[in-house]
Amino acid sequence: MNLIKHQAPELEVSQWFNTRCPISLSSLRGRVVVLHAFQMLCPGCVMSSLPQVQRIRQSFNENDVAVIGLHSVFEHHHAMQAEALAVFLHEYRIRYPVAVDRHDPPDAVPVTMTAYCMQGTPSLVLIDRAGLIRHQHFGVMEDLALGNKIGSILAAQTSDTPIKTNNASCSIAGHCQPTSV
Amino acid sequence: MNLIKHQAPELEVSQWFNTRCPISLSSLRGRVVVLHAFQMLCPGCVMSSLPQVQRIRQSFNENDVAVIGLHSVFEHHHAMQAEALAVFLHEYRIRYPVAVDRHDPPDAVPVTMTAYCMQGTPSLVLIDRAGLIRHQHFGVMEDLALGNKIGSILAAQTSDTPIKTNNASCSIAGHCQPTSV
Amino acid sequence: MNLIKHQAPELEVSQWFNTRCPISLSSLRGRVVVLHAFQMLCPGCVMSSLPQVQRIRQSFNENDVAVIGLHSVFEHHHAMQAEALAVFLHEYRIRYPVAVDRHDPPDAVPVTMTAYCMQGTPSLVLIDRAGLIRHQHFGVMEDLALGNKIGSILAAQTSDTPIKTNNASCSIAGHCQPTSV
Amino acid sequence: MNLIKHQAPELEVSQWFNTRCPISLSSLRGRVVVLHAFQMLCPGCVMSSLPQVQRIRQSFNENDVAVIGLHSVFEHHHAMQAEALAVFLHEYRIRYPVAVDRHDPPDAVPVTMTAYCMQGTPSLVLIDRAGLIRHQHFGVMEDLALGNKIGSILAAQTSDTPIKTNNASCSIAGHCQPTSV
Repeated sequence: MNLIKHQAPELEVSQWFNTRCPISLSSLRGRVVVLHAFQMLCPGCVMSSLPQVQRIRQSFNENDVAVIGLHSVFEHHHAMQAEALAVFLHEYRIRYPVAVDRHDPPDAVPVTMTAYCMQGTPSLVLIDRAGLIRHQHFGVMEDLALGNKIGSILAAQTSDTPIKTNNASCSIAGHCQPTSV
Repeated sequence: MNLIKHQAPELEVSQWFNTRCPISLSSLRGRVVVLHAFQMLCPGCVMSSLPQVQRIRQSFNENDVAVIGLHSVFEHHHAMQAEALAVFLHEYRIRYPVAVDRHDPPDAVPVTMTAYCMQGTPSLVLIDRAGLIRHQHFGVMEDLALGNKIGSILAAQTSDTPIKTNNASCSIAGHCQPTSV
Repeated sequence: MNLIKHQAPELEVSQWFNTRCPISLSSLRGRVVVLHAFQMLCPGCVMSSLPQVQRIRQSFNENDVAVIGLHSVFEHHHAMQAEALAVFLHEYRIRYPVAVDRHDPPDAVPVTMTAYCMQGTPSLVLIDRAGLIRHQHFGVMEDLALGNKIGSILAAQTSDTPIKTNNASCSIAGHCQPTSV
Repeated sequence: MNLIKHQAPELEVSQWFNTRCPISLSSLRGRVVVLHAFQMLCPGCVMSSLPQVQRIRQSFNENDVAVIGLHSVFEHHHAMQAEALAVFLHEYRIRYPVAVDRHDPPDAVPVTMTAYCMQGTPSLVLIDRAGLIRHQHFGVMEDLALGNKIGSILAAQTSDTPIKTNNASCSIAGHCQPTSV
């Protein structure tokens, strides 16, 4: 229920899935970002929050709401490596971009998770069009309350913030465009 | 998905439940109103939309969102009289105000339902703080989409519309205050 | 969890729905009978046990398992008369035979309900091929446990009891056959 | 819906979890065995059939019904090794014995899965007290139908088959007893 309003820390990512280019939060200015921290072997993530995030992806337009998965492994690191995650994303048909949160041993908790002071997985962060954290939640919110949060963040800033063209530097390469955000 | 923006017609009510005073939409200016048209023997209402409306009631503050049930009987009138509705509301623990939509025979469809051009039950109408219809839906929306709608209506007008003290004329009687809106 | 083994008392019925002929338990010898006592304005019945009974009807062959609804009104009698029940059965698409448990004022509890010592609604009674009560439950059982009970009653007696042709006296009239049991 | 009645092939296992001793089907004679073939990264297994198997474990007495998980990996072998499975079983709180189906490269399909002619995961096999296959199903059955199957297998043979003391050879070691079957 906390309403933090500081700038969302940039993602620290060791590998991306479902996007041809790395994605920075700054490149998503102008859109609301739903950042979903999960672990592939966390039952609450698999049974509840991942299906909810899929519903978000289907319910909102990609130009309004960007969905980013963040694989923030803080336990059983050996069992949740990138190779296994690739299989998981394929089997669960997760198509939106997923970042692997950077793991710097000996710290068990990965870098982005630490920067956001997350309490565990699943965690959901709502970032407004200006890049400010408007909501952060550990566990699973009810759909009605979550829809309300996203709707109010979307509505509050419609006129305030210009939508930037995103990933400008990335697209210089020509071939390099995010496949879906 | 329609975004009608005309004034919400006033309710035409033959009897109220769960309120000591009749409630007019005009007395609710300053709040978003969720108007839920249902029939007590309509399976889609009982199994899906009434539980959803109960979740709305629990998820939003009464000072922001007023929930009004509208018993709009347009078939099997003999089986859904006010006496039976009283039992239904008691058994299903519905505590928010419920209006009986006025039935003027020989018309099967009651007066308020006709005024809103509703296609059937369940129907949900979202009315903004200024009394304008912002959304009307026949059937059951997903919680995420509905939360988004309510959230955006709530957010868009926070600064525009002063919250009126409601039911001023009603409260002249002293004892007469809505029990819960 | 009680395993009563006495003879199932015959139904005392004031009116039948979904059958052209009155049905007696004795006419159902040779089949397992699922007797479901409910009230049309009981939320636990409408939300949980009636859908479960519909699943039973779809999951088992009618020649093996007869499903009988028993409308056992023990409160709010005025709101659950036969006329209202007819609408309810139509709207909820209940096609199996439903009996109205006989109400003898001034007793609030109807006659069959009393004979079975039921504690309330919903109640489920499982009667074996020989007409003995093998299980009686107040509330809603889990599907797995209920399926197990029915399966064991079905299996235990396959060879013991000959399947009688049912409703012999009724069918003398020629036209008069249960529409679906 | 197939009712095969041949002897259930013995399990070919490379590793056991949740039991201190290897378990043979022959040691379970006298009990009905629910054999559940799954893969830890198979969504249908994780979302539907594993929760159902947990319900079976809770609904039936261990002396009547033995539940055995069979990790039959036939794809993405590198992502579902025993180490990862150990984490999975821990996180999902699966306490009943789980066998790793023996993988003999270059065959992708493991040995037990092949012996049972399984079509994929999840698959459920019901084995009667005499060790005969009574039901085999690819996909997820409804609880009511599954309960019925188990109930009828349990009931049919209550008097036929003596319950053997199981794992006799295993318990020679003194300390070595299955922790839970």
